[in-house]
This record gives sequence, structure tokens and C-alpha cells, in this order.
Amino acid sequence: MTDNPDKLTERRRRSLGPAYRHFYSRPLYLTRGEGVWLFDNDGRKYLDCYNNVASVGHCHPHVVAALHRQASTLNTHTRYLHHAVVEYAEMLAATLPGDLSVCMFVCTGSEANDLAYQIARAVTGNDGAITTEGAYHGNSTLVAELSPDSGRSHPAPDFIVDVEAPYTYRGSFAADHPDVDTAYADLVDGAIATLRERGKAPAMMIIDNIFDAHGILTPGPAYHRSVYAKVRAAGGLIVADEVQSGLCRLGDHYWAFEDAGVIPDIVTMGKPLGDGHPLAVVATTPDIAAAFAKTQHYFNTFGGNPVSATVGKAVLEVVADEDILANVGETGRYLKAGLVELASRHELIGEVRGKGLFLGAELVTDRIDRTPAEDAVHRILERMREAGVLIASTGIHGNVLKFRPPMVFRQQHADLVLAALDEALAETV
Amino acid sequence: MTDNPDKLTERRRRSLGPAYRHFYSRPLYLTRGEGVWLFDNDGRKYLDCYNNVASVGHCHPHVVAALHRQASTLNTHTRYLHHAVVEYAEMLAATLPGDLSVCMFVCTGSEANDLAYQIARAVTGNDGAITTEGAYHGNSTLVAELSPDSGRSHPAPDFIVDVEAPYTYRGSFAADHPDVDTAYADLVDGAIATLRERGKAPAMMIIDNIFDAHGILTPGPAYHRSVYAKVRAAGGLIVADEVQSGLCRLGDHYWAFEDAGVIPDIVTMGKPLGDGHPLAVVATTPDIAAAFAKTQHYFNTFGGNPVSATVGKAVLEVVADEDILANVGETGRYLKAGLVELASRHELIGEVRGKGLFLGAELVTDRIDRTPAEDAVHRILERMREAGVLIASTGIHGNVLKFRPPMVFRQQHADLVLAALDEALAETV
Repeated sequence: MTDNPDKLTERRRRSLGPAYRHFYSRPLYLTRGEGVWLFDNDGRKYLDCYNNVASVGHCHPHVVAALHRQASTLNTHTRYLHHAVVEYAEMLAATLPGDLSVCMFVCTGSEANDLAYQIARAVTGNDGAITTEGAYHGNSTLVAELSPDSGRSHPAPDFIVDVEAPYTYRGSFAADHPDVDTAYADLVDGAIATLRERGKAPAMMIIDNIFDAHGILTPGPAYHRSVYAKVRAAGGLIVADEVQSGLCRLGDHYWAFEDAGVIPDIVTMGKPLGDGHPLAVVATTPDIAAAFAKTQHYFNTFGGNPVSATVGKAVLEVVADEDILANVGETGRYLKAGLVELASRHELIGEVRGKGLFLGAELVTDRIDRTPAEDAVHRILERMREAGVLIASTGIHGNVLKFRPPMVFRQQHADLVLAALDEALAETV
Repeated sequence: MTDNPDKLTERRRRSLGPAYRHFYSRPLYLTRGEGVWLFDNDGRKYLDCYNNVASVGHCHPHVVAALHRQASTLNTHTRYLHHAVVEYAEMLAATLPGDLSVCMFVCTGSEANDLAYQIARAVTGNDGAITTEGAYHGNSTLVAELSPDSGRSHPAPDFIVDVEAPYTYRGSFAADHPDVDTAYADLVDGAIATLRERGKAPAMMIIDNIFDAHGILTPGPAYHRSVYAKVRAAGGLIVADEVQSGLCRLGDHYWAFEDAGVIPDIVTMGKPLGDGHPLAVVATTPDIAAAFAKTQHYFNTFGGNPVSATVGKAVLEVVADEDILANVGETGRYLKAGLVELASRHELIGEVRGKGLFLGAELVTDRIDRTPAEDAVHRILERMREAGVLIASTGIHGNVLKFRPPMVFRQQHADLVLAALDEALAETV
């Protein structure tokens, strides 16, 4: 039952504790969602240009109907036979290239990345893990250690090594470096050498293909090809973390790694798969699955249950039926062009990055020193919220505006975002 | 769409891989559930005396309706304000004794136990963890290390120490030991000393209050009181893993630790909370939550979302409205008395254990040597399945029949189980 927002905020502080944070200085109390629209407790409408979990739109009727139908019929687990999980695995495998035909089911992206490490460790016999500085891959104890972005309240164990991300705007190599992709890829040699000095070898390197927490990066194909080759030569597997970048999000393929023409050994998928329902997947090859099964059985109580699998199927059906991939490509290009146009008029925007419907605008107080304009970001987020448009921020300095809407976002919605942002930027000089 | 079970099994083997296991030698293909009943692809009816996830019965209409209503309305996350998660946290807190008034939301019991360790480590400044030999607490990398039951494909790190569980039927101290509870509790001194030798101290000890994977144990209050005191004196917190034993399962209280009159520092809850929906919780005190928040923020994409929280509320409503606690107490006593009666006639049953609707019957080939009768267990599970009754096995030797039905199980259902088991035992001499 809706409550006064101030009272509810206070009740929340008591019952959820202070480790929880809100978006916005004045918490936004949302009570209804539909497509790309969210509504607050006063009935006020917001354009959602941020939430990727509601991948095919808030409360998509086809997904809700599937959820309701299966939840009314049966919900057990994978120790019984059921068609939904098999059908869903087959549908997912059909979207994946190469030999990636085996799916294992979990509930969250954190669980998927955690399981990926367990598989990589079992299959390679190594225990090292390479991750990128600034990455966020989830919140289990192990995965938080793979996530320098979380601030690592506890030091990373010696089997984890960080490598610089291909952040051309601020990193060791600028975009105009003649071999910028391979220059960044070559840094992985150092990480492998560090593991070797510790008597270790990589079980895996994990890569978020959109480098969300770093500030949204899209290195060229040469980066991925070179990194894949180096890690594999050292005995490790490649884990493509597609929790953020997957399921058509980047507009050209179902999975972001396809942009680089590479095929990882393990793919982890999460947030968007269930349009809000807790559903995540680890996909791999039959060989890797078989090698893992030699040492371990796998069971996850809720993972791949009939309801979750049915919801996952319904989302894939919507993605195909509504031609989501084409829309993401088109709308994404349109929105990015609009951001680039804004950058031509607003000095605050240092760089526009990203692809499909995962775009970033890095704000700087000046374009020469590139000083991060974190305060401006906060003011703009609040100003946009007042204007009825929800976006968020990301990046290692927290100074990148993030545009990552439900994938049913259209050009007319992009126009609303661009107009609101234009005004907010003008007011935030 | 239903398929030929053999074909479906083969498709499953290909698409889920060999790490997945089935119950039963011939996989059971379930297609519908209702209350305590499950139906297979041929329309055959099975009495479910095993599945605790469907805590208030398969497809409970009140829970399904709540799920459908909220999934049709809004599903976001805890960075926006929403009443459902606050109301659910308050309802859960009202079931908990003492100061356990703060709830943090995750999706699985594994995530709950993993977060509990992170909290304990942050709050105590220690990193040691004590667990019981034979325990199962989940499957994240860290929690698998806390779970000797999983066989630990990888050696446990040096901050984890196992301690013998209070297994009076086979352990170091028999039930007729004059101070059996404190004798087992005293073993924790050794675990603390081992940590100390390694330059460590306990952040926590984690206890599954029904010791499910050990074979279902219910040590007396003195065990818990003494263990709590020892761990706390060494600077650690007590984590009560109520994923199996919680939510009225043991028949006298909402939470199993209440049977011993103790109050843990952290309570983890999982499986039964959502009647099938992926929902899990970490409950703790305001002081511990505040100390944790000093070093860390917390966010879990799906944890505590409006749909999950609404489902959790609906389950608690059913638990109260249908007086589940009283039913579990009554039906549990009736079923246990029936098992004890069977033990008086069937030599195969070495010991009947457990409480409420979490009961075990340990099978032995002879009562003197207590040789585990694992083969007999398998034959009985298959025989019971043929008779239309689903139970399972547990225990460090896999020789304990496990009875853990949905909590809407009634005496007439218990009669069916006992009759089927009587026959199966007679045929399995």
C-alpha cells in the first residue's frame, strides 16, 4: 500500500539498513511501469532511459502472461524433467555462435560469474583470474574480488590480477595511438607474468564487453582477438560477461562479443534475460561442460525452474517477434548521433561513447585537462528527473552519463531525452 | 510443450550438459502441481513429501495472484523507493526475536550465506569461518568452501575450519553421553584454536539448524548456547542458516534457532520464502547493519524487487492465515510417531530423527554395526515413486530417508506416506 514517501523512506532506512542507497537526493517512489514509461506515487510519468532489466519494456504483457501461466501450473526444479528449461536452453543456444550449446542455470549475474570461475578452475586446473581495473562483475565474495569497481573492502587474493582497461580517453594509450587495440591487449602479458611469478596460471580472464563500470568502452576487434589468444596460450578460458551487453543491447548482434568476431569459452548472461524475473545463465561448449562434470555435479534450487525458464522463453519470443535487434540498432544510432550533436554545442561533454542502446557521455569541466565533472553529472541527473527523464551515471570517476533504456525505446523517446539533456546541459555550465 | 520423456531426457543431456543430475533412475517428468500433489506427463498423481521450496503448497492461488498482480504493475529494484520491500522486511522482522530487525535482500540461499560472510568479515575485522563437517550451505565459490558436503573439488582456504557436527548416532559422543550437547559444543574450541594457530580469528560460525546434509540432527539447546558463547567470546558472529529449517518448518516456532532459546547475529533465509519464486534474505541487527554500511554499500539487482517482495508478503500471509505453524507441529508429530512405529517393525530403520515436517529415518543393514544401507535407500526411493509418493535421501552416507513436504501436508497425507513406506520396507529386507 502506498505511503507518504518521507515516512516510507524512514521505514526503509530502519528495515533495510544503511547499506542500501537510493538513486536521487529525494528518493523516487515508483508504483507502475509500462513499456518505456514509469509512474510515481503521484501518478507522474517518467521516460525510462536507464533500466536494462526491463529489457523488452516494463511489464511486457506476453512475458507477464507466460509468468502467470507457468506459476499457476508448476514450479519445481531441475532434478525433475521439464520441457521449459530444455526448450529455453535450446532457444538460447540458437542465438549463440560456434559450439556454445550448453546452458547452466542460476538466478543472478553474480551467480553466473561465480559459476564461470568454478568451471574455468575445474576445467583448466589453474586458479588464476584476470579482470580489468574498474570492472564490476557482481557481489558474491569471489566475484566482488573480481570487481575492482566495488572498492574491494578486502584485499584481492593473490590468484586475482587486474589489468588496465582499454580506456582511450584517459588510459595509457590514446585513441590516436597507431595500434591502440593491441597496445591495450599487450597489457594482458603483464597480468599473465604476474600470475606466473606467483606460481600460478590463468583459469580465466573475464571481460565485460561494454566495460560498463569503466565508463562504457568499445575497443576494436583487434583488442578482443589479441586478448583471447594470449589468455588461451597461457592455459586460460575467456569468460564473456554479457550481463550488461548481451541480448541485442549493442544493436548489431545478440551478444556483444560477436561485434569482434570472437567466440568466448564461457558466456555469462543475467539482468535482461527475464524482463525483471531473476534469471541468469552460464553458456559454454559441450567439451567444457563435460570436463566440468568430471569433477562436479551442479544444482541451483531456483535456477532453471519451470517458471524462470518459461519467462526466459517469453522474453526471447518478444525479442524475435518485435524485431528488437533492429530497433536497438536504429534507435541507438539515432540517440548516439543526437548526443554527438549535443557535444558539438556543450563543452561539458568530453566524449560520447558506446553502441546500440548502451551509450555514455563523459562530462569534463574542461576538454584540455579532461577534469571529471562529477558534480555536473549529479546536477544533470536530478535536473533530468525533474524533467521526467531517468538516466544514471557510471565510470571510474562517476562522470559518465549513462543511457541504457528498455530496448523498446524508439526515436520519439530519444527525442525527449535529447531535448531534456540539452536543457539540463545549458543550465549546468 | 510436453515431449516424449526419453527424447526430452536426451535433449536435456545435450543442452544442459552432464553436470546436471536427475532424481530417480528413470527421470520423473512433472507437468503440474497443486498443494501437496504433483502430476506427471501421463497425468499420474504423486504425493509430494519432499519439496520444501513449495512451502505453502504448489501453485498456491494467493501467492500466484500476488505474483501476477505485481508483475503486471511494476518490477524494478531497490534503488527506487517501493512499499513492498519495506512492508515485507517489516513483516519478516515481526517474526524474528530480539533485535533482528534489518533485512537485506538477495535471490538464493547461496547468496544469503555469501553475504552473511561478507557482513561478518566487515563487522568483526576477522576473516575466519567455522562450519560443520558434512554441511551444505550453497554453491557460490565461498559458500561451496563452507560446504564440506559438496566434496570440495578445491581445497578449502586456510580461513575456513570444519568442526564435527553433533551426530550422536555415529559421532564422537553418543546420545547417552551425560553431557552430549556440551561435549559436541566443546569441539568448537579446537576450531577456534586452529584458526588462532593460523594467525586468525572467527568472523563467524555458520550453523544449519536442522543439519540437513549431515542426516538431520537436532542437538539440544545446550549445544547452541555453548557454541554461541564460544564463537562470540572469540570475536565471531553466529550465522543461523535457516534456508532449510526456517519459516515454521520445525513446527514450534517460525525459526529453528528459537527452539534452543538463542538469538543469532545474522539469520539467512531462502528456499521456502517465495513458494518457488527466487527470494532470499539476510536478517541482522541495526548495529551490525550499521557497522557493515560503514565499509560497504549493498545492491543486488533482483533482490527485494517489488515482485519478489510482494510474493514474500503473500507467503507470510498464507503462513498466518492458514495457521501453518500449528499444522506443521501437529502433522510433524503424527508423521514422526508413524516413523517410530515403523522402526519398531522394520530392522532397516536404525534411527528416526528430526522435528516438525523435516524428518529423517536412517537406514542401516544391521543395528549393531550401524552399517549404512545406502542401496536400500535407493531401492526404497524408487519403490515409493512407483507407489506415487516422493521422498528423497540425505546424510553424509546418503542413507537417511528424508521427509520434508510442503507445509500444508495433513495427517491423511502422512498416512499415505507411512503405508507406502511400510510396504517398501517390507520389500527391501
